Amino acid sequence: MSEEVYLSSEAQHLPTKRRRVTPEYQRTLRLDTETTQKEVYVVGTCLKASLNRSAPPSSKFFSVKCSPSVQYSITPTPQETSHLSPLLLHGNQLLLISMSQASDDLNDSKLCVRYYGEKKQVLGNAILHLTAVEISLDVDADRDGEVEKNNPNKASWKWGPGGHGAVLLVNCDSEQTGYRQPDHEKENITKVSDLKDMSLMVLRTKGPAKLPEGYKLTMHISQSDAESVRVFRSRGPGAKDTSSGSIFYSFFVKTYPLVLSNKVLSQEVPYFGGNAELNFHVEGLRFPDKDFSGFVSISLSLLERIGIEIPDTPIFTDRVMFRMSPWIMTPNTLQPMEVFICRTDDNYTLLQEMKNVVVKSGCELKVCPQFMNRGDRWIQDELEFGYVDSPHHHFPVVLDSPRDGKMADFPYEELLGPDFGYVTRTAHKREVTSLDSFGNLEVSPPVTVNGKHYPLGRIIIGVAFPTAETGRNMTKVIQDFLWAQKVQEPVALFSDWLLVGHVDEFMTFVPAPDRKGFRLLLASPDAGYKLFKKLQNDGHGQARLFEGVKDQTTLTVDEILADKGHQAENNYVQSCIDWNRDVLKRELGLEDADIIDLPILFKLVWDDSQNLGFKALAFYPDMVNMVVLGKNLAIPKPFGPKVNGCCALETEVSSLLECLGLSCTFIDNFYSYHKRLGELHCGSNVRRKPFDFKWWNMEM
Amino acid sequence: MSEEVYLSSEAQHLPTKRRRVTPEYQRTLRLDTETTQKEVYVVGTCLKASLNRSAPPSSKFFSVKCSPSVQYSITPTPQETSHLSPLLLHGNQLLLISMSQASDDLNDSKLCVRYYGEKKQVLGNAILHLTAVEISLDVDADRDGEVEKNNPNKASWKWGPGGHGAVLLVNCDSEQTGYRQPDHEKENITKVSDLKDMSLMVLRTKGPAKLPEGYKLTMHISQSDAESVRVFRSRGPGAKDTSSGSIFYSFFVKTYPLVLSNKVLSQEVPYFGGNAELNFHVEGLRFPDKDFSGFVSISLSLLERIGIEIPDTPIFTDRVMFRMSPWIMTPNTLQPMEVFICRTDDNYTLLQEMKNVVVKSGCELKVCPQFMNRGDRWIQDELEFGYVDSPHHHFPVVLDSPRDGKMADFPYEELLGPDFGYVTRTAHKREVTSLDSFGNLEVSPPVTVNGKHYPLGRIIIGVAFPTAETGRNMTKVIQDFLWAQKVQEPVALFSDWLLVGHVDEFMTFVPAPDRKGFRLLLASPDAGYKLFKKLQNDGHGQARLFEGVKDQTTLTVDEILADKGHQAENNYVQSCIDWNRDVLKRELGLEDADIIDLPILFKLVWDDSQNLGFKALAFYPDMVNMVVLGKNLAIPKPFGPKVNGCCALETEVSSLLECLGLSCTFIDNFYSYHKRLGELHCGSNVRRKPFDFKWWNMEM
Repeated sequence: MSEEVYLSSEAQHLPTKRRRVTPEYQRTLRLDTETTQKEVYVVGTCLKASLNRSAPPSSKFFSVKCSPSVQYSITPTPQETSHLSPLLLHGNQLLLISMSQASDDLNDSKLCVRYYGEKKQVLGNAILHLTAVEISLDVDADRDGEVEKNNPNKASWKWGPGGHGAVLLVNCDSEQTGYRQPDHEKENITKVSDLKDMSLMVLRTKGPAKLPEGYKLTMHISQSDAESVRVFRSRGPGAKDTSSGSIFYSFFVKTYPLVLSNKVLSQEVPYFGGNAELNFHVEGLRFPDKDFSGFVSISLSLLERIGIEIPDTPIFTDRVMFRMSPWIMTPNTLQPMEVFICRTDDNYTLLQEMKNVVVKSGCELKVCPQFMNRGDRWIQDELEFGYVDSPHHHFPVVLDSPRDGKMADFPYEELLGPDFGYVTRTAHKREVTSLDSFGNLEVSPPVTVNGKHYPLGRIIIGVAFPTAETGRNMTKVIQDFLWAQKVQEPVALFSDWLLVGHVDEFMTFVPAPDRKGFRLLLASPDAGYKLFKKLQNDGHGQARLFEGVKDQTTLTVDEILADKGHQAENNYVQSCIDWNRDVLKRELGLEDADIIDLPILFKLVWDDSQNLGFKALAFYPDMVNMVVLGKNLAIPKPFGPKVNGCCALETEVSSLLECLGLSCTFIDNFYSYHKRLGELHCGSNVRRKPFDFKWWNMEM
Repeated sequence: MSEEVYLSSEAQHLPTKRRRVTPEYQRTLRLDTETTQKEVYVVGTCLKASLNRSAPPSSKFFSVKCSPSVQYSITPTPQETSHLSPLLLHGNQLLLISMSQASDDLNDSKLCVRYYGEKKQVLGNAILHLTAVEISLDVDADRDGEVEKNNPNKASWKWGPGGHGAVLLVNCDSEQTGYRQPDHEKENITKVSDLKDMSLMVLRTKGPAKLPEGYKLTMHISQSDAESVRVFRSRGPGAKDTSSGSIFYSFFVKTYPLVLSNKVLSQEVPYFGGNAELNFHVEGLRFPDKDFSGFVSISLSLLERIGIEIPDTPIFTDRVMFRMSPWIMTPNTLQPMEVFICRTDDNYTLLQEMKNVVVKSGCELKVCPQFMNRGDRWIQDELEFGYVDSPHHHFPVVLDSPRDGKMADFPYEELLGPDFGYVTRTAHKREVTSLDSFGNLEVSPPVTVNGKHYPLGRIIIGVAFPTAETGRNMTKVIQDFLWAQKVQEPVALFSDWLLVGHVDEFMTFVPAPDRKGFRLLLASPDAGYKLFKKLQNDGHGQARLFEGVKDQTTLTVDEILADKGHQAENNYVQSCIDWNRDVLKRELGLEDADIIDLPILFKLVWDDSQNLGFKALAFYPDMVNMVVLGKNLAIPKPFGPKVNGCCALETEVSSLLECLGLSCTFIDNFYSYHKRLGELHCGSNVRRKPFDFKWWNMEM
């Protein structure tokens, strides 16, 4: 049995899981033989009165009369066959009262309970004047983009294709481009266009022109939920064209009053008589995180005034539940839309070559200018593109890294804008390491692991060995954020063996026409040595690495193979990568045939500056650090030994990848990136199309 | 399908839910034709090597030879029918290696892969020397009080009678009585008796006398989990009597070194050769709360040294999962053990009368002396008794209220002790209201609500209306704590209409032989007025309330009924109680026949001191505020109007309750408690026997 999430009772709290509760809403009513009672009844509920509790002393019989609009029953059902003559009064009899439609006028329905003595003499009458109203707080609980009427599942939330429950977006884009600030941080709605980032919630009411004196409608949320949402409303009700069945909303009002926020947990909302619809706009304020499950509930109550200086009593409560959209990452297998690269003093040619690949791939090259990047070229590390999604709207959201290099302002100042959201997490400066750069944050294509389907893939991050007594880690606030999104459950790899420490230094994913729709590419020193040994064996021992690179000492294949110390270093690197290979196979459900080893050698360097000890760096341009744009791959040019004028490394990598229908373009990034301890992937960032798959359809 | 809780991968984090993963642990191994490799193999795992990746260039064939202790297979399975002659080397062949039992000596098992050229000439040998060890980190995953060997479910946790997963206790009692401090706050284990508050975890190993050079065992936890547990170990291994199969542990060592804590996340643990068992003692540090799900994992890894200044590689990891016992409350239907009452200047007679009821009920009266209570008699409000439970041990735990009156020190100074735990939550002083007193914290007997079973009942608290713009609430830290325990999902009632504001002013539960095994008793002004009207009707209009109470103005039944203002106040009170009645029926799955209305009138008073407005107080001693001790009820003596020398209120209440087999003792608490705005229940506290039902058997 799949479980649903419900909000517990009335108190502020996290949702808990429990089974569906029958929606029938019963209310205990006091019968009073001394004063006529005026009650508001909400269609769909049931009023329940003890017949005995308020009966005059010595009452032995009773009878009930009511207007045709009122239905009543007595429980336990009386023995008597006719209700016309007085019935015998028992100790535990209950009167159940309901009405099937809204009243046109106040108090237009009546019910009277008459009590009789032993000799059927009248002892008293309990008279009720009833006004019936219809009240429904509605959301898009069936996730079709429309707010349906009174969905029976609106108060709970269930994952999966057979699930239900409305969706919220964190309103983290900025409608204004002049003064950039995420909209949810602004005090008010500044543009009507901002409404589409919110979820529509409709209060549908039907009844007399106004509520009886002493009754009012109030919307309310718990203190906890108020940290995560705000509610605005439209000033007036939408005019409902009942003749055609279509609905027109008056969107000409300029201001939308704030109804609920962390400062106002409860506020009266207007009642408009007749058949009325009042629009509310629910705005998400924060993403799921360690202390926020993503679920929020909003309630609407009908209050009855009992007396002055006494709190009004909620006599009916309708409730709806939302879940905040997670922040979703996009793997290399999704269609690229924009490629971001920084312009620097030394990358003019590279930019041209990249532009060719980008244009060939049908997407756009966005150059981050020098005044903005201030010499920092590692745009991969500063930010990660993702998106948020709901049935009514979706938009990209950039996750800003705590790295905060010289282009720290770029995500906020340049990316944040209309329909482009922004989110970040603040870490203590001293906790931030190179592992918090987002070259260390990747995502797999969709996978199935031991029967569990991850239709949005799994996030991949790099950390230290869990057994290490010291070591660099990705900072806790970022890890907490990533795990809390839930839909791309992260996998933690070991990347602390690398000097820079990013998972993109030894792995990437490329699309493939067969098997799981992709291949995992892993850097492999063993594959490198195997290739070099084959070259030596085939008589190319004197072919030279780094030939044609200006001011760079070249090395022959023979020299590479003769260096046993270097081989030992690479054996260590291979074992580090193999450790990750085992984790990736296990956590992504991969077989060896889903993995391709690329011939890449590393070297160990001694790091004094941060006291890191021996750490690894690519020995020649690290081809796995490539940019994947559909079938086109922009790969760091390795400057490998040449055989018949062709680089043997390029030949090998091309032959491994071209059979998958991929096209390899090798681009020289030797001085501009490789020598600065990064490659093409580190120096670029790709915004991709969102998944077609909707996150709320995941089976959790 | 029921879901299980697993810990994600390697990173520190909350557990996420996913399906069972096959436990087979595969490790990629590098074959090397240049040096003999010495590897440690863990029984139950699989070593996987690419035959091709390390083959000498021009290799065309290979053959595999090994010791009889080693099993191997090749995948894909070779076409050749015999493995004796060299096999054709393919590009994607993998060698899978396993061993079925631990080695007696280091490197006592061998495996050799021989590579051949085109003409079957030998090109090289990859030689492996293998040492097999058995490693199992074990816990009581089947919850029978014994630590079984290598339970296949030990790494995950599942609720319910068919579930699995080990249990931890927060070690919040104090073994020492001289210097009281919860044991988990102490730096070390101070008494061997403290070990029983911890969960036993056994590291079982089998293998040669020592591990090969460069290998070691390390225990580790994530940073998050280290906030919730510590791990101690015994100094030496338990001596296992293999002849009889029974196990004896040497508990004579006095000190137990701390292995893991929030300061040490990873530490080497000793390996003892042969067939060894090493005991660890896992101590819970904190209860589930808003930011802690209660789940923690502990891992043990075998590390391989790759080089100096390079982190050791974990080549095998075994993992166990625990869940912290929740703090569990005990409803009135559980057998009472001890009744606590404060001695005051004015309650000598009451103490005697209470003692009679307590003794009759087979439990013990514990008097809190005056030097300790310092004149504060409201012991109900200062603390709540509960307990923690595991398969191996359980003990009571007092939850100390943030109320902190004059007897604030009593729970810590008097109750905390050996096998008596203590927990509290710190709230901002200015947030604490009368609603934080634990007369406002009760628990229902076991109930079933729309098919959902609550075998431990549901916690009941009182708050303001969720729609109220102002109002008193139970403080958030306490609410968060109560909800996080999960097994007694709270129900929030409306109690802010009362001046004191406690749910025990209008409700209690008593045992019953029929129906659900209990009745809910509710205070009811309507029932009160009904009784008074009947008295008047029967000619007792001149009978007097409060007759026989010294210095108290009496009132006739006629006078009570003539006061229409007072009747209006009580109508309001009845509507407040009815609102709660509806919530209780809904949230506890009750029918009207499960509820008994007790005739109790209230009055409204204007509160200036805290600016609360009109709030309600009991008009005469509030009989529902009774002490329930099995079938014996100690009820505040109401001093109602007398009919034939008997109090009509006592007569009515006795007749309602005695038919359930209950015995009512009415005790005068008029001046000592009632006039001070409380009654017997507020002035007492009962410690009860734990449930027989085990919390981990709940279906969640």
